Amino acid sequence: MENKFLVSLAQLNPIPADVEYNKNKAIDCIKKAIKNKSNLVIFPEMFLIGYPMGDILERYPILTEQCENALNEIKKYCKNIAVLIGYVEKNNDKFGKPYYNSACFIKDGKIERNIRKTLLANYSEHNDYRYFESAQVDTDNRIIELNGIKFGIIICEDAWNDFEFFERNLYKTDPVSLIAPKVNVLLCSASSCSRAKKEQLKHNMMSYCAKKYKVKYIYVNQVGANDELVYDGASRMYSENGELMAMAKHFQEDILTFDIKNGGKINPLPKGLELTLNSQKKFSLDYEPDLERTYKAITLAIKEYFSKNGFKRAVLGLSGGLDSSVCAVLLADALGKENVLGVSMPSRFTSSDSKNDASELAKNLGINFIEVPIKDAHVLFSEKFEDIFNNISWCERYEKSYTQDNIQARTRATILWGISNEYPKTLPIATSDKSESYMGYATVNGDMSGGYAPICDVTKTKLFALARWLNKNREEKNAIPENIIQKPPGAELAINPETGKTLTAEEALMPYEFLDEVIWRIENKHQSFNDMLSETFLYEKKNSLSKEQKTIWLEKFFKRMKSAMYKWYIIPPGPVVDSYSINKIEYKQSIVSNINYKEN
Amino acid sequence: MENKFLVSLAQLNPIPADVEYNKNKAIDCIKKAIKNKSNLVIFPEMFLIGYPMGDILERYPILTEQCENALNEIKKYCKNIAVLIGYVEKNNDKFGKPYYNSACFIKDGKIERNIRKTLLANYSEHNDYRYFESAQVDTDNRIIELNGIKFGIIICEDAWNDFEFFERNLYKTDPVSLIAPKVNVLLCSASSCSRAKKEQLKHNMMSYCAKKYKVKYIYVNQVGANDELVYDGASRMYSENGELMAMAKHFQEDILTFDIKNGGKINPLPKGLELTLNSQKKFSLDYEPDLERTYKAITLAIKEYFSKNGFKRAVLGLSGGLDSSVCAVLLADALGKENVLGVSMPSRFTSSDSKNDASELAKNLGINFIEVPIKDAHVLFSEKFEDIFNNISWCERYEKSYTQDNIQARTRATILWGISNEYPKTLPIATSDKSESYMGYATVNGDMSGGYAPICDVTKTKLFALARWLNKNREEKNAIPENIIQKPPGAELAINPETGKTLTAEEALMPYEFLDEVIWRIENKHQSFNDMLSETFLYEKKNSLSKEQKTIWLEKFFKRMKSAMYKWYIIPPGPVVDSYSINKIEYKQSIVSNINYKEN
Repeated sequence: MENKFLVSLAQLNPIPADVEYNKNKAIDCIKKAIKNKSNLVIFPEMFLIGYPMGDILERYPILTEQCENALNEIKKYCKNIAVLIGYVEKNNDKFGKPYYNSACFIKDGKIERNIRKTLLANYSEHNDYRYFESAQVDTDNRIIELNGIKFGIIICEDAWNDFEFFERNLYKTDPVSLIAPKVNVLLCSASSCSRAKKEQLKHNMMSYCAKKYKVKYIYVNQVGANDELVYDGASRMYSENGELMAMAKHFQEDILTFDIKNGGKINPLPKGLELTLNSQKKFSLDYEPDLERTYKAITLAIKEYFSKNGFKRAVLGLSGGLDSSVCAVLLADALGKENVLGVSMPSRFTSSDSKNDASELAKNLGINFIEVPIKDAHVLFSEKFEDIFNNISWCERYEKSYTQDNIQARTRATILWGISNEYPKTLPIATSDKSESYMGYATVNGDMSGGYAPICDVTKTKLFALARWLNKNREEKNAIPENIIQKPPGAELAINPETGKTLTAEEALMPYEFLDEVIWRIENKHQSFNDMLSETFLYEKKNSLSKEQKTIWLEKFFKRMKSAMYKWYIIPPGPVVDSYSINKIEYKQSIVSNINYKEN
Repeated sequence: MENKFLVSLAQLNPIPADVEYNKNKAIDCIKKAIKNKSNLVIFPEMFLIGYPMGDILERYPILTEQCENALNEIKKYCKNIAVLIGYVEKNNDKFGKPYYNSACFIKDGKIERNIRKTLLANYSEHNDYRYFESAQVDTDNRIIELNGIKFGIIICEDAWNDFEFFERNLYKTDPVSLIAPKVNVLLCSASSCSRAKKEQLKHNMMSYCAKKYKVKYIYVNQVGANDELVYDGASRMYSENGELMAMAKHFQEDILTFDIKNGGKINPLPKGLELTLNSQKKFSLDYEPDLERTYKAITLAIKEYFSKNGFKRAVLGLSGGLDSSVCAVLLADALGKENVLGVSMPSRFTSSDSKNDASELAKNLGINFIEVPIKDAHVLFSEKFEDIFNNISWCERYEKSYTQDNIQARTRATILWGISNEYPKTLPIATSDKSESYMGYATVNGDMSGGYAPICDVTKTKLFALARWLNKNREEKNAIPENIIQKPPGAELAINPETGKTLTAEEALMPYEFLDEVIWRIENKHQSFNDMLSETFLYEKKNSLSKEQKTIWLEKFFKRMKSAMYKWYIIPPGPVVDSYSINKIEYKQSIVSNINYKEN
């Protein structure tokens, strides 16, 4: 290996389908790299088209032409530099899927190689098999030599099938095992989403493979966010000993240039991430290791969703409760406090405490704030409904209905959407959380409704932890009044006749610590009703819980989940941050499906 | 071949994930078949788990166990009869996707064979590669002999890869070519959705293959509907000459039993279906060949969505416009007129004509009908918004906003959802159509909102044709007042200052005949802006249209579509009926994606 070889990791943020924009970004980056005397620039997987591009390729075939034209333009800028850049390639054969997921290798102004991905991810948020033909590993084609250094090229999922590292393998081929033994450096171009468990897994796997094959391992990842998916960047290089030698920023664009022999700057990841992998194995209420990442993922997701769609401002209802308060902080940090409007919309069930908490939060954050009482609208609709129900001839009618409660939630949403209709570039925010979505404990056209749902993949117990973390770690401390974190969550839509106070969510559902563990067990352990009944919950270690009560809660959970399914279908887009989610991009379940959760 | 061999095509309607229910259905059917002295019963693909089962398998692994147990129970009933039944099989190998899409062959009370699907559909509504490992074609295993007749078994997509019939092939293997030459009868067990172009294509393909290999070709299809997908049944047999010898009902459960030598009853398909395949090739306003199928698909979809989710009644707003009127007819036919409530909610822009048309329609249909004026709510919100906007400090504000218009639409939805909250098993209906969804010409939390969206995949020009078809072909003729079909569509939410009358949709958008052809060209021809600009539209043959005006409309289309994308994300579930749709189950596109539709 020669003495000096500079490589630039082009960790950039593309716009899906906007080939023109992505091409220009690439050319700018190549120019900078030439200035910095880089020998090689590596772009993320599919950079020219942007991940995830979805079905747009099929309906707009012009996009593959645009990619081809872009490559021909880019190559003109590649004098005295080598470039590896991901794009979508049309499959012109009579057989196979319509495209290849390809990376183009350009040197001295010429397209020298075309490398096609072999392993096509088709689980969770991935749909590669939907579009791409899998290419056999052509080892010779995958190896390029620059300044006497042999580089082996793999694309994203190609890296994830080591037969020893993983207990079970999705594919029968391991491209790394065919390429790595023949090269000095393994180059992985990727567009890989941030997920709770993944960072540590990725680190362990890549470090393991670098060591196993005694190669340097370079990984370049997309950064940014598209709808629900957040790309964390954190591009990197490992040494032949599996040691981290360089790492780009995470959740930010970064072009990291370093000498391949010595490595470069190591931008740190959040502390404690190694625990997120273990958190897959045992339920815990200690969310600390994942909170910085969650915060960065959500604020980046908001920022990107707004800017890529041409929005600027957010309007949300501030109830004085936990969900809307955490959303307000995240929005203020993502969009700037001047671009956030909090609206307190007290009804007859809203306590003065809640009103005060909401206004104090807004003051602490410095966001815009108005109060819009909705008693009059509630009264008007209530009277209207009385008339309506007198005129309907159906005999079956609920003894206790949610009609009244929901008027309040829907009136609030009507006000928020109305505001967004009046001010340009303004989007209303859905504030429901993941625990509520599982239970259908949110109102359609009410708090469920909005243009973006920032915390839809955060459970309630984690939200409490996140609120405390925000209070401690943001520059302005304690923005969220302690009162908001202390009080029991509830929609404040109705009175509990047993207590005489407004009904709390835990009274209506079950304790959140229990509920969130059920969710965790389904998502991470895939446990059935009976599994859960026979195992001991963390909640049971801290509280006395009869088998009878546990059964009641579990039954309630499964019944409510079944009837919540149609609400999952219309949850607005929001960032995936957990290991598993119910966000549409990753989880598919028929609304009509029916699980016999209780075996006979 | 012996003289008599009775086969029963078990064209049944499963519930996704409800193995217990599906198993009992299978056992009942087997008992009947035994009574009828059938030699062989064939169930649809994946019958025990029900298509589409989605990701539910991963989170609830107990379902594969339930399938295994069900097979062991079913086999006890299979004395003196052979059974082929689809189910999901766990893949216990260290490699590959977690499941197989399998069919179990049972004879004389014993499981004799297990056949695994080879070709895994992963386009459009299909996600097979997400779950299933592809099995090599083991020809011997695929062939079973009964009474001297050799049957070759294929599963759904296995049938769709003939190298001569199709211009381009998605896969390199054609299971039929390996199996068919060695058998007398080809048996295809399928769960195949109804799509506009598909019926004729299916007929042509199967008839072609039967003739090509000189085999009888038996095809058994799932029937029913799950969320967006409608299974049309129409199970059948072709002779060795490619002639149709038997056909079960379409869009209904049916157990068709016949002697394999002579064939059986041929239940007819709608007339003119052969034109639906050609309709892929050229845009036409003659929707006639597809209207009976569209009607049957939508009414079945509604019925199934309601019954499988435990709903019974529907409530919808009746504006006196085309969309809500057609919806009302479809709902009355699917659920029974007594279970439908039409609500007329006139605002200050609602003409007395519209009110009268709505009530006349309700009377004609015999559905429940009430009138709820919403002027007061509009006034209340308008005043409220005046206050609100005075208190908001953001300076940018639209000169002409949709705030007022949308108050009306959202008030109406609040009333419909309120009614559904008061009466058990009642679902509100979203009445938006496909043309409107493309243009974002529908209000979030307004007419876009509901538990089901019956016509979300029907374009406006097709809706006009469907309305006329309904008036002509239903038992009660002319239920939809001619006035409703005659008047130009419009939301009646605002006045057009140029005409002094309420703004029509075509004034706000462009002529529907033009708009629907743009949609057709994108979906069927995948044409770009420039393609469309240079080709002659049907509209242009009938009307004079300057290039300038055409450019303006096309630009408007692409701009509106981009900003309508977030609305696509929250369209409620509704049946896919067209060849291509924007329903979530089939079409995936990032909201943030940006196409450079106008090339420089």
